[in-house]
Amino acid sequence: MLATFMYAAGDVRVETVADPTIQQPTDAIVRVVRACVCGSDLHGYHLMEPDAHGRPMGHELIGVVEETGSAVTTVRPGDFVVAPFAYQDNTCSVCREGFQTACPHGGFYGNRETGGLQAERARIPMADGSLVVVPDTDPATADPALLASLLALSDVYLTGHHAAHMGRVEPGKTVTVIGDGAVGLSAVLASRRLGAERIILMGRHTSRTDLGRAWGATDVVAERGDEGVARVMDLTEGEGSHVVLEAVGLMPAYEQAYGIVRPGGVISRVGVPQYEDAPVGFGSLFGKNATLTGGPAPVRAYLEDGIAQVLAGEIDPGRVFDRELPLSEAAEAYRLMNAREALKVALRP
Amino acid sequence: MLATFMYAAGDVRVETVADPTIQQPTDAIVRVVRACVCGSDLHGYHLMEPDAHGRPMGHELIGVVEETGSAVTTVRPGDFVVAPFAYQDNTCSVCREGFQTACPHGGFYGNRETGGLQAERARIPMADGSLVVVPDTDPATADPALLASLLALSDVYLTGHHAAHMGRVEPGKTVTVIGDGAVGLSAVLASRRLGAERIILMGRHTSRTDLGRAWGATDVVAERGDEGVARVMDLTEGEGSHVVLEAVGLMPAYEQAYGIVRPGGVISRVGVPQYEDAPVGFGSLFGKNATLTGGPAPVRAYLEDGIAQVLAGEIDPGRVFDRELPLSEAAEAYRLMNAREALKVALRP
Repeated sequence: MLATFMYAAGDVRVETVADPTIQQPTDAIVRVVRACVCGSDLHGYHLMEPDAHGRPMGHELIGVVEETGSAVTTVRPGDFVVAPFAYQDNTCSVCREGFQTACPHGGFYGNRETGGLQAERARIPMADGSLVVVPDTDPATADPALLASLLALSDVYLTGHHAAHMGRVEPGKTVTVIGDGAVGLSAVLASRRLGAERIILMGRHTSRTDLGRAWGATDVVAERGDEGVARVMDLTEGEGSHVVLEAVGLMPAYEQAYGIVRPGGVISRVGVPQYEDAPVGFGSLFGKNATLTGGPAPVRAYLEDGIAQVLAGEIDPGRVFDRELPLSEAAEAYRLMNAREALKVALRP
Repeated sequence: MLATFMYAAGDVRVETVADPTIQQPTDAIVRVVRACVCGSDLHGYHLMEPDAHGRPMGHELIGVVEETGSAVTTVRPGDFVVAPFAYQDNTCSVCREGFQTACPHGGFYGNRETGGLQAERARIPMADGSLVVVPDTDPATADPALLASLLALSDVYLTGHHAAHMGRVEPGKTVTVIGDGAVGLSAVLASRRLGAERIILMGRHTSRTDLGRAWGATDVVAERGDEGVARVMDLTEGEGSHVVLEAVGLMPAYEQAYGIVRPGGVISRVGVPQYEDAPVGFGSLFGKNATLTGGPAPVRAYLEDGIAQVLAGEIDPGRVFDRELPLSEAAEAYRLMNAREALKVALRP
């Protein structure tokens, strides 16, 4: 089959490898209907040290179950499924509390052991905990827009939802979203779903912020840094934003976040931090009782609801996909996203 | 009148100064019944650069109103009151949301402008927002234990309560309190009040942890650092604590906190951080979706309830006071607390 590997920064290749096989009785093999490239894949695209073996890429898919291990009970061959970007048992106490990305028995795709999902087929560990069936839908005949929205549930939309959920977005709150990438825009849509009346989107790419406006952003702030902070403070009568959803992961975004958060407000991060230490003392978070929260989205916790909302036509998160390419052109997909010529690219095996 | 000043690290003096006077129509003058020394006062006792003018000390008191400005309407001369450790209008939108320590019109005691409360008399700015009457109580005849518990509401107990409140302590949660100082012990009592069944207290001073046990601590961990982390992980079956209340403010306590917090758990800080930057990235907070919260306690938000609970005999937070000295011996009070010969010292003018 074809699968995608990264060999170094900027060096993505689609290669022919052996099909994955059942290794554990809890595994399933899924034929990929659509995969895609994630903003977090671009961190490696910028920085990865050369690796002669190549790193298997991809952690998002929708697909059809082809084979299941003997212990799998909740999915069977022929089922159309969405896979969250992490796998988990979904039965342990950590999973039951809704934090499946920290499941002590689970893990992440994109390594030698579990492989990547930008491929024609994938081995899904702990399939009972890690696949959710899309009912009454045939991917062969489904509307492409529906497929795109289901694919968005694998990571990007429910990551935006996680940001809003952890940020305790609710009616009456002012929400500011930092970042107009696919996750930031998803956070706008999720915030509107959770009842936010005012949603300020910080971003400077008009084609993206236009989608943000369509999804509920009431204000767009193109300025960054101190100017961006000043602009949001002006918009909030000097008091700041109740909730700040940080969908970038870089220090300047963090600094903007604590600059604009209101006393007692929440900064919720879902951009994977490209830093370890950051200001948290009296002058940044503590003095104004700001809360810092967020982390890798436990997509599994939100996936049934997300599928139901997509099937009901209540949300259209697939609009973040502005390009679709054959899987064989995955390298071009990375190039397009890295060059900001595409917001998010779907891959079709 | 007598008032307390710090001139340098270790140099505390009680001096005779002019009585405070009404400066704004919103001021009140309060005769101090009891004041006390705070753990946070000790930071200056360790580190303060010499100041020839002396820094007025103290931010906790119970007292009797002697005089009010023309605009004050909620207290009057003769009222027995508790003063929160910060002053605030208690009417602006930030105060109404319950974060009075960030009131844009309020501020803190212990500077040239507002003076300190370790004194015979004090000027309380914004008296309507900054004093709460203790009903039906005559301080001249009240039980000393009752006075101590009311005094504890000025800062220490309601700071512990704030930690637990921001940490979302509730039935079913495991809570770990880092620090066996007066705030840490108060956080134990507050956690029990909020329904925590399991409360692990990290501290090594038996006389203090004994009070923690009396107030609801179910386990005491004397180990610190990696050993302390390992011990708490053992006690929580390797999963960590849902809530960690950090009542120290030093980096080793912060490191313990993220070491023991459970995936999806909350670290709530009320020890004033003696650092600005700290780990918050994938390896500390983000990877396990840990939440960091806390700040200066908005005592005003909790004060009516606290007074009612003390008067009803439901809580006895005054037990943190293990010594009482005349105000004239404030220097000795600082020495005792700094040497850990006293947990918390009340001052009697």
